[in-house]
Formats: sequence, structure tokens, C-alpha cells
Amino acid sequence: MSLDTLITNATVVTVNPDFDILYNGAVGIANGVIVHVGAPPASADAGETLDADGAMVLPGLVNTHTHLAMSLFRGLSDDLPLMRWLEEVMFPAEARHVSADFVRAGTLLSCAELLLSGTTTCCDGYFYEDATAEAVAEAGLRAVLGQGVIDFPAPGVADPKENVAAALRFVERWRTRSPLISPGIFCHSPYTCSGDTLRRAQAVTRDAGLLFQIHAAETKIEYDRIRSTHGATPVAYLDRLGILDERTLLVHTIWVDDSDIALLAKRKTPVSVTTESEMKLASGIAPIARFLAAGVGVGLGTDGCASNNDQDMFREMDLTAKLHKVNLLDPTAMDAATVLHLATMGGAAALGMADRIGSIEPGKAADLIVVESRRPHLAPCYSPVSHLVYAAGGADVRDVMVAGRWRVRNRELQTLDVQEIMDRAARWGERIGKGSAIPGA
Amino acid sequence: MSLDTLITNATVVTVNPDFDILYNGAVGIANGVIVHVGAPPASADAGETLDADGAMVLPGLVNTHTHLAMSLFRGLSDDLPLMRWLEEVMFPAEARHVSADFVRAGTLLSCAELLLSGTTTCCDGYFYEDATAEAVAEAGLRAVLGQGVIDFPAPGVADPKENVAAALRFVERWRTRSPLISPGIFCHSPYTCSGDTLRRAQAVTRDAGLLFQIHAAETKIEYDRIRSTHGATPVAYLDRLGILDERTLLVHTIWVDDSDIALLAKRKTPVSVTTESEMKLASGIAPIARFLAAGVGVGLGTDGCASNNDQDMFREMDLTAKLHKVNLLDPTAMDAATVLHLATMGGAAALGMADRIGSIEPGKAADLIVVESRRPHLAPCYSPVSHLVYAAGGADVRDVMVAGRWRVRNRELQTLDVQEIMDRAARWGERIGKGSAIPGA
Repeated sequence: MSLDTLITNATVVTVNPDFDILYNGAVGIANGVIVHVGAPPASADAGETLDADGAMVLPGLVNTHTHLAMSLFRGLSDDLPLMRWLEEVMFPAEARHVSADFVRAGTLLSCAELLLSGTTTCCDGYFYEDATAEAVAEAGLRAVLGQGVIDFPAPGVADPKENVAAALRFVERWRTRSPLISPGIFCHSPYTCSGDTLRRAQAVTRDAGLLFQIHAAETKIEYDRIRSTHGATPVAYLDRLGILDERTLLVHTIWVDDSDIALLAKRKTPVSVTTESEMKLASGIAPIARFLAAGVGVGLGTDGCASNNDQDMFREMDLTAKLHKVNLLDPTAMDAATVLHLATMGGAAALGMADRIGSIEPGKAADLIVVESRRPHLAPCYSPVSHLVYAAGGADVRDVMVAGRWRVRNRELQTLDVQEIMDRAARWGERIGKGSAIPGA
Repeated sequence: MSLDTLITNATVVTVNPDFDILYNGAVGIANGVIVHVGAPPASADAGETLDADGAMVLPGLVNTHTHLAMSLFRGLSDDLPLMRWLEEVMFPAEARHVSADFVRAGTLLSCAELLLSGTTTCCDGYFYEDATAEAVAEAGLRAVLGQGVIDFPAPGVADPKENVAAALRFVERWRTRSPLISPGIFCHSPYTCSGDTLRRAQAVTRDAGLLFQIHAAETKIEYDRIRSTHGATPVAYLDRLGILDERTLLVHTIWVDDSDIALLAKRKTPVSVTTESEMKLASGIAPIARFLAAGVGVGLGTDGCASNNDQDMFREMDLTAKLHKVNLLDPTAMDAATVLHLATMGGAAALGMADRIGSIEPGKAADLIVVESRRPHLAPCYSPVSHLVYAAGGADVRDVMVAGRWRVRNRELQTLDVQEIMDRAARWGERIGKGSAIPGA
């Protein structure tokens, strides 16, 4: 067996259909693809061998909702009513500061954070998405990237009439440009885009077989507004527009009823839940258990740093499990394996990539992470899955591989200059902090 | 000015009454006490000087509820109904395994975890508390330690009739033995201890001016049981026994009504809320905002590792803020400063130590931590307090000082041999894992 990389002596949490966990397991990688999972191969000619020394090896985490560039707004303002936060802080800050340079700087910062904490694939939506794509490609993450569409003047798209055309150009530029990047479109919401805009944008992605993302049913205010304007729930309204299919990803989906859930299942439309952000903004609690029971695909995401304020998918798993237990007053709700599945295979399926990523199985892309187990907060170990969800954090990630190449080794980023990225972020922070009247600060 | 330690170039988050934050601040320590907070002293003769290089310096976190020894059960079983978890897993495991050796090994493991993640004071309750105290003293944490009392045969106290006498002996042994350790009594709950036991145990601590801890109003089952047995809510029942005063700490206090809250305020009885554990066990949500509005003192705690499963107070702060926002559908609930206050001064006051710890002020004990700020997930920085609650984690803690002495420097424990502690924990884990029929594992 000829391998580029052989990982030995690992506790391999495969997230395969049987959820197999291999102790003293080995993973072999060749040409960016996993070619061996099991006991160490009898004879192997490997370019490099990594002795995991008992550490956990699992599929790279899949973050199904980010606004990468917004890391530059991390902690700019918290604990405000949603409308004041949006209208007095975020919208003015975006109008004043967001440029291609801003997006590049914020995206690089986020890529550093994502890779160092074990995320290997993300799904982003923002403006100046070309700058996002260039930075993501440089970092070496796998990503689905949606150019933002909104029926207002937006960063980089001054004339809203051009928004779908601008998104189409982004899609065309990136369709074949990088093997790790899949372009798409991100429509902001059903209340900031007209039905016509939504239909035209979704047609672009549908024709190209790409992902169409949209925030939907996020807040009670939105729910009430769509019902009074269109006489339907947000989900039913989007379905009436004809844009719910398996390549449409609805983000948040908190304010949904049983018929909405049945509709999503029927259309095979997946959802992305961003538990931490939805808690912090007090939007509500997405009914993940009911989605899963109905057969609706669910991925987890961190959302942007302006509303979370970190992008650690381990924290997202932990909170998702715990929130649903206490909300349903049922400690058996959202067990650890279910949540780990959401953060790996669930996310992969939600992005239409279940055949390529999300588990450690022969034939899948070699997107995997090595998580330290020799730490006081991870001892002793009765169940690796329990530890991954309830005790580990992004800071326990030691090595990260995307498409067979190491992006992080021994907690050091291999693709980016972290110090330079943080220095640039600090300079943006100074500029933004001075320019903003921050309520409550 | 003659100092043992001078910390310079720090972002000092004082948690003093004005919640002052000092940039490029300095903290001077002599004889275990903070003697200077402000600009660097004009002339100082310091035994050592630590250039914090812009890192955040804040009071050590106060964890008001632990069962330190239970770290050896971390992840033994999750996601089960409470009664099955207790009766089929935890009680048999405790009966089979808990010994003085077990308590020592588990406590050392927890002390390593606590110190490395920024906790400098904890409040514990368990059995074989002498072994706990010896291990805590070795680690160099500050602690309030309660010998467990329950009206059943318990580890180390085979005859329940001896439980209060055994606790009294523990209190007497440790009253003056270590300047960092304050002994007390931990009664398990109002449904596992008789009224007579509770009164006798609380009399011991009251006479000695020490802390009396008890789990109370944790679950709906308990609430219903106490109401049907005693015709009163758990809080009202404890008050009727005459044991609510300012040196009684009620733990969990989820199932309380307005008159219970008024009663706690009147008796000046503080509460300890363990958000993560209460979420994971699906016990419910303690009404922290209503406690604070009524003037009831509140501290935060992690609870034992069997039900959390980590002891990182940063995660506890983050979840506490977010849970209350989403539960009240109000993003202004539990702002970052309020939560940081709970985890420092709030906890100090709940333990009756507000005059000694919980803030960085001249005259207070030098219990402080240095938190790294040069990390991608902490950049840029508009508000140190926001970052501490919403973005930082225990893994960002670089240095930890208790009573003027470094317990952690550059992430290395100074007092304990971490590798040896983890090896011993692993051996306990093997023994416990083999001996337990773990449902669902």
C-alpha cells in the first residue's frame, strides 16, 4: 500500500453509518483521499507517518453558517435589543467599513480561528465574496461561498438592481477555479429580498447545481411580518415561490410549525442551526429534535462573530446538546452521538457533500482532525464521543488536514501567518472602534 | 514600594465596585496581598516582574459548586433519564469505588483542571473530605470544603447516625490547619436528610461561623415530593427548619416561586447556580435575573464532572449569559459584565469571602489570572469583558496566582505533576469502566 500519510495509534471516531470507533486504529491517505481505515496495514510505504499517541482522530467539523469577514466586528457590541444592535451598530458599521480589504482581513482571521479549532469545511455568505474566496483558498479550507444578495444598497453592490447579476458573475468566476471552493448565492432573508429577487437568484444556483442559502424564520418579528404581508409562514412563503429544494439551505428556522417541518421534509430542504448565535440574540430555539424526527436534514453553524462571538464548533456541539435537553426537560434529547453526527455528516449532507466529506471512510476526501486526549479535562476516558461533545474544545485540536494536506500541525497554522493576520485585525479594530458610537460601551 | 511580584503592561479587569478596566495597568503584590493597582509605580523594588504583554489580568474565578472527586466519573454515562443515571450508574459506581484513594486521585485531577482553566477558589462537597482537603492544599487552591452528610450509608460513613459527628470532626480538624482551606458541611438535600439531621448539621457550621451547603429545589420531582411530604416548597421547608441564614448556600434553586425568592432575600441566603450541569441533566433553569432583582446573592459553579462534564468556568459564564437571553427572549438579559461579576465577586460573596477575594483591589488576597489576548479567536478587541464571557475559554489562561504564589506559569502547573495525575486517573478509569454496566454504552 503506497500512502502519502499514515496515521497510527489513533482512537478513530469514524462517524461512518455504524458510528464505528476504532481503538489503536490507523488511517491511510493517498492523493488527498482516505484509502485505508482500520488496523495498521501489514505493509505500507508511507511518505510520512504520524503516531497519534492515542489521540482522537475524527472527520473535520463542518460549519454550515458563517459570515467570515464579520470577525472584525467580534464583540463590537453585545447585549442589545436586536433592532438597536442591527440599526444602530451593525448596519452603520458595515456601511462605513466593509470593503474588499476588510473582507480579506476578516476572512483570514476567521480561517485561522476555524482551522485551529477543527473546522475543515464552512459555508459562508457575505458581500465582496470574491475576496472571501481568495482568502479561503489561501488558507486551504474547504468552503461553500455565497455572494450576498439583498434588495438594498450593499457593500460592493451599490445598485440593488444589479445584485443577482453580481452574484451570477461570482458564481461563474469560481465554478472551476479552486477544487476546494464551491460558489453559490446567499440571499439575506425573505423580508429583505423581494419574491422576484429570490426566484431569480435561486434559479441561478439551481441551473448550476449549486447551493442557495437564505436566513429564514429567524425571529418572531420576521415570522409575524411575513404572515401579515404574505399570509403564510416564512417557510410556506418560500415554498410558494418555488425555491425550496434539496439545494436550498434555510438558516436558523426557529419559527416553524408542524406543517412547515413536513414541507421541508417533503422538499428535502435542509436547515442550518446556529445555536450559540440564536441564544445570544435571543431569537429562539430551533426544534432540532422535531426536524430530525421528520427526516429534515440538519447542520450546525456558528454564524458570524458579531453575534456569537466565537467560531468554535466544539462549543456549538456542547451547547446544542445541553440547550435541547433543558428546553425539553429531557436529558435523553440530543445525545452526544447525534450532535457529533450533526456537526460532521449532518453538515456535509446539508451542503450536498455527503459523498465527499463528513466521515472517515475509504473514498472520502482526507478532511480530518486530531484531538488531544492527554489533558486533565479529558481524563479519564470512558467514551471518546462523550468527551468530544461535552468536555473538549477547539483548543484541544492538535492537527488539521484538508484534502490530504496538513493545515495545522502541533497547533501551528501551516498556511497563514497568524501574527500578521492578528496585527491587521487589531488595526481594523482600532479604526472601527473609533468610528462607532457603541451603545452601552 | 517593595513588592514580591509586579505585573506590568496588563489590561486589568478589576471587578471593583466601579468595574474599572485599566489599560497598560500594573498590579503589585506583597506577602500574598494586592498592594498596588493602577499605573506602574514610579519606583518599585520587585522580586519578580511579569510583563503581561497586553494580556488580560482579572480576579481568579470562583467556582461555587464542585464535587471534585467525581472527575473520575467524567463521561461514564450521559444522556440518560435522571433517575436511571442516579440509580443504575452513579450510586452503584460510588458504592463500589469511592474510597480515600479515589477521592485523592479525583481531587488532584480536578485541581489540575481548575487551576489550568483559571479557577482559584472552589466550594466542594463530597465524602472522604479529608482526602479532598489534603489534595486541595497540595494543589494550592483556595477552597471551602464540606464533608458530605446524607441519611444513608455513605462512602466513609457506613452508619448514617454518625454522619453529623463525622462532619463535625472534619470541621474541627481543618479549622486552622491551612490558611487556604475553610471547612464546612455539605448536606446532600432536603429529601435525603431528615429535618433533624439538617438542623444538627447546620448548628455545627453556624456555631463555628462556617458555610453550610445543600442541594435544594433542583428538580421538579424533589419540589413535588417536598410539597406533598411537608406541605411547603423546598425553600420554605428549609426556612421552617430555621436553617436559612447568610452562611447557608443553596445549590441549584431552580424550582422556586416569588415567595421563595423573597424569603431568600430576607434571610440573606445566597444560591449557587450550575448552568451547564442543570442543562445537561435537564433539571430546569434557575431564575438568576429574578434572584438578582430581588437582591439574592448568586454565584456560579460547574457541579461535578459526572454531570457537566468539564469544570471550565469560562464556559459556565458563556452558557449562563446565553441561556438566560434565549429563555427570556431578551438579548439584554445577563450582560457580560453581570456574568463576569457572578463568576468573581458574586461567588466570593456567596461563600462569605467578599472581603478577601473576587476582585483586584488593594488589600485583597492576590488571587488572579492572566488570560492570553493574542489569539485569532480573541481578535480584534473592543471590550475585554465581552471577550472574557463570549469568546475566551479556560485554555486561554496563561498564568494563575493564588495568595501571591504562582500555581500556573505559561500553562504549566507549578504545584502538581500533571502526567502522574492523568496516569492515575486512567488506571481508575480502567477499573471503573470494567466494573460498570453502563446503560447505552
